[in-house]
Amino acid sequence: MVNRQCNILESAQFGDPTTGLFAMRIHFASEGISHDAAILEKEFSPLANRFQMNWSLCDSGYRPRVLILMSAQDHCLHDLLYRYGIGELKIEIPAVISNHRAARELATSHDIPFLHWPVSAGDRPKDELVVDEVVVEDEAVDFLVLARYMQILSKNVCEYLPARIINIHHSFLPGFKGASPYAQAFERGVKLIGATAHYVTPDLDEGPIIEQDVLRVDHATPPEVLAEIGRDVEKVVLARAVRYQAEQRIVLNGTKTVVFR
Amino acid sequence: MVNRQCNILESAQFGDPTTGLFAMRIHFASEGISHDAAILEKEFSPLANRFQMNWSLCDSGYRPRVLILMSAQDHCLHDLLYRYGIGELKIEIPAVISNHRAARELATSHDIPFLHWPVSAGDRPKDELVVDEVVVEDEAVDFLVLARYMQILSKNVCEYLPARIINIHHSFLPGFKGASPYAQAFERGVKLIGATAHYVTPDLDEGPIIEQDVLRVDHATPPEVLAEIGRDVEKVVLARAVRYQAEQRIVLNGTKTVVFR
Amino acid sequence: MVNRQCNILESAQFGDPTTGLFAMRIHFASEGISHDAAILEKEFSPLANRFQMNWSLCDSGYRPRVLILMSAQDHCLHDLLYRYGIGELKIEIPAVISNHRAARELATSHDIPFLHWPVSAGDRPKDELVVDEVVVEDEAVDFLVLARYMQILSKNVCEYLPARIINIHHSFLPGFKGASPYAQAFERGVKLIGATAHYVTPDLDEGPIIEQDVLRVDHATPPEVLAEIGRDVEKVVLARAVRYQAEQRIVLNGTKTVVFR
Amino acid sequence: MVNRQCNILESAQFGDPTTGLFAMRIHFASEGISHDAAILEKEFSPLANRFQMNWSLCDSGYRPRVLILMSAQDHCLHDLLYRYGIGELKIEIPAVISNHRAARELATSHDIPFLHWPVSAGDRPKDELVVDEVVVEDEAVDFLVLARYMQILSKNVCEYLPARIINIHHSFLPGFKGASPYAQAFERGVKLIGATAHYVTPDLDEGPIIEQDVLRVDHATPPEVLAEIGRDVEKVVLARAVRYQAEQRIVLNGTKTVVFR
Repeated sequence: MVNRQCNILESAQFGDPTTGLFAMRIHFASEGISHDAAILEKEFSPLANRFQMNWSLCDSGYRPRVLILMSAQDHCLHDLLYRYGIGELKIEIPAVISNHRAARELATSHDIPFLHWPVSAGDRPKDELVVDEVVVEDEAVDFLVLARYMQILSKNVCEYLPARIINIHHSFLPGFKGASPYAQAFERGVKLIGATAHYVTPDLDEGPIIEQDVLRVDHATPPEVLAEIGRDVEKVVLARAVRYQAEQRIVLNGTKTVVFR
Repeated sequence: MVNRQCNILESAQFGDPTTGLFAMRIHFASEGISHDAAILEKEFSPLANRFQMNWSLCDSGYRPRVLILMSAQDHCLHDLLYRYGIGELKIEIPAVISNHRAARELATSHDIPFLHWPVSAGDRPKDELVVDEVVVEDEAVDFLVLARYMQILSKNVCEYLPARIINIHHSFLPGFKGASPYAQAFERGVKLIGATAHYVTPDLDEGPIIEQDVLRVDHATPPEVLAEIGRDVEKVVLARAVRYQAEQRIVLNGTKTVVFR
Repeated sequence: MVNRQCNILESAQFGDPTTGLFAMRIHFASEGISHDAAILEKEFSPLANRFQMNWSLCDSGYRPRVLILMSAQDHCLHDLLYRYGIGELKIEIPAVISNHRAARELATSHDIPFLHWPVSAGDRPKDELVVDEVVVEDEAVDFLVLARYMQILSKNVCEYLPARIINIHHSFLPGFKGASPYAQAFERGVKLIGATAHYVTPDLDEGPIIEQDVLRVDHATPPEVLAEIGRDVEKVVLARAVRYQAEQRIVLNGTKTVVFR
Repeated sequence: MVNRQCNILESAQFGDPTTGLFAMRIHFASEGISHDAAILEKEFSPLANRFQMNWSLCDSGYRPRVLILMSAQDHCLHDLLYRYGIGELKIEIPAVISNHRAARELATSHDIPFLHWPVSAGDRPKDELVVDEVVVEDEAVDFLVLARYMQILSKNVCEYLPARIINIHHSFLPGFKGASPYAQAFERGVKLIGATAHYVTPDLDEGPIIEQDVLRVDHATPPEVLAEIGRDVEKVVLARAVRYQAEQRIVLNGTKTVVFR
């Protein structure tokens, strides 16, 4: 750093003795010749190779391209687009894809193309072929966000985009996996409800957890109000996960994540 | 209330359309002739019968008799006894029972009898006979607290004392049921850990939830620190549940609870 | 209740010995003749008069008319309008008033009239005359919401609408009163930042508190990120306060509030 | 690190552009010759001098010597001694000093000397002379903990031990500075109460904040229950601050702290 005229702005390390991972994230500012990323990469490569590092160098000014998929409920989309619109989320959104038409106006009001893909049990694999081959490649998508998509992605897609698909699950995983978590939470009489943002893997609701939070409820909270309160925690948890991913703060560690907040 | 010279100090109601329960708790102060609970009970009975109420009248000055069972870990016992000692928990503790000897000094320093009952797989039913027949009856125990007891009570005991046994489970139920929840939480990489106080039923870790809370952890928190942080949330959640039970703030509602906080 | 064929759905009481207030909120469903509110009111009046009650009877289907005032920052407006749009907030919004033009499109996209009132130190009293005389009366406004209005209302307006103006202050009051609370919070090095919804009184930032919440930050959080995180807590706290007011869950108790949540 | 056979276990950096501080904490394990701290120190010195670092090397096995001062309320002392007793807090406690006699039994039950120093307005300076000259020097005290001491230390003592005295204030500073914060909180009608651990400086309740947390209360919580709930947050916040200090996780940054959690 020193002899390349770089200043460290933020830095963190973590070593996990159980998996053998040693992860480091350094955010630095450079001047002069070092400002050329290609030169820096070339100069750093021999060192990285010597220690067999898995590494990448990214310009913090780059805005990752994020494809958003959603279904009927639009509170997460709404929240993400608001944060995007005011510059809080420094991302590009090449498209919003939904199996419902309702969000078209919301997406287009932000000048984002909206694709309506009706999904039925039979044709899902085809859609997903489109996701991975056409859209992801053509649009140079960095990662996908399932903002209450409510559809199960095929094993192929999950494996094609490891640690590149973020889902928001409306429960405090591993509690209430699967469908209708608020109904399950009401049945069980829990005193807090939560939301979990996680990477999508072929194993449903079992992907590495990125972020979680909870809000308090009580015996008098009916299921529809659980869902209402839940929206507030879902939105915030998903937005945090998207920001961590966009700022490259997440390192996959086996079935878990390291999040350098 | 009015024509019995009683003043309402605190009152709450809750009606559950799904179970048909209508619960009410009224805390009142009385003067004059009404100060005699027996007279009040007699006068209220016809009204209660007319509406087929399930009801009870309790003197708020009465200190419920609470039997505490625990194993090797004493942080919950320690915390309960501190709150008991300074008058925060208005209960009597006829005895502390443990399958370890370690807590003897702690209990006796508060002038509470300590019973050491070594437990092995074979003789557990006998112990539990003792719990319900000898101790509970002889000592007029109002309810039991499993302050990290780590033993499974027999079906008989559970059914003998419905809504009268409170357990603290060191996870945010229904996540991480069963043994070693902190190890499970570490494995799963959750970002919050929790604790749950619930009534004990024959169905392990499935009893009605009374209180829950969580604390934040992250990828760098090893299992032993999870347990350390977890103790802070366990203690507080159990203490709240014991206070709610002692102040008769909990109403059983099928597999759930109503807690008038 | 019984002999008027009414069913209590939700009910709570609170007596404050220090102020002498006894407050009660009963939400009930009625059938038959009792469905006529005018008849119920007439029948209840003698009882209320006998006990010198301050009371009102409101149809829970009535949607209160809420006037929203805001300045340049639109995250609270955006959030309130989203909740309004999906039916979570059961209110009517006769107009959004702002001293900036920026929110016009947002308001009108929800079919809500937008009034741009440029404010300068000299002409504020005039504007406020308009608020209370023209808008509040003409539009039958039930209460005002200052969704980051950033202007100080005149003493006259505050006194004209007691317990009818809700402000969101972007700090955990009474900490960081006045201007630039996030800058103050950064200077002071706090580890949590908060937001406070309160009734507006002539005494700036001293009105009765309705709701508060906090989020965790740390030494590495710069002021602009404090503001970013702060927006998440501001939005939620204000939305809760508006809901409590709309559902008539708040009772003024001197300089404090009773909130029947 | 590499050529001294050291492995990084945990490491974090933080640069503050407003104060010019760059802080780094590295926790490492060493083998072979590097196991000798004196040799490591000698070898590292030239590098540290070249970059004008303020640095220290500490054996993580060293248990800091912590002097605890307290008054009548013993919940924080109780909690600290429990954590100390079970090995959660890796510190030594050369003495507990109190202006009340009540905690003598508690301290001595942990084999810790108890000193009763009655304090009155006139003789306080003398006591404090004792604190800094006799006790702190003779007992090689690393830092002091004011576990609800309720006395104001003299300017001399504060300046003699910069960033070495930790106080727990029973409010969410900067709200409710000074005496009786729970009474102030009740008066103001806040919806959350908090606690703040901070370094003591001559400027009362203005020292750098180390840790804060809050718990929810409501309109029905009387002052004595505020204090009861408050104890739960005070204990945990103080214990965290003591652990951070003992593990050298805190770096003073002007009037603020950097806490490498």
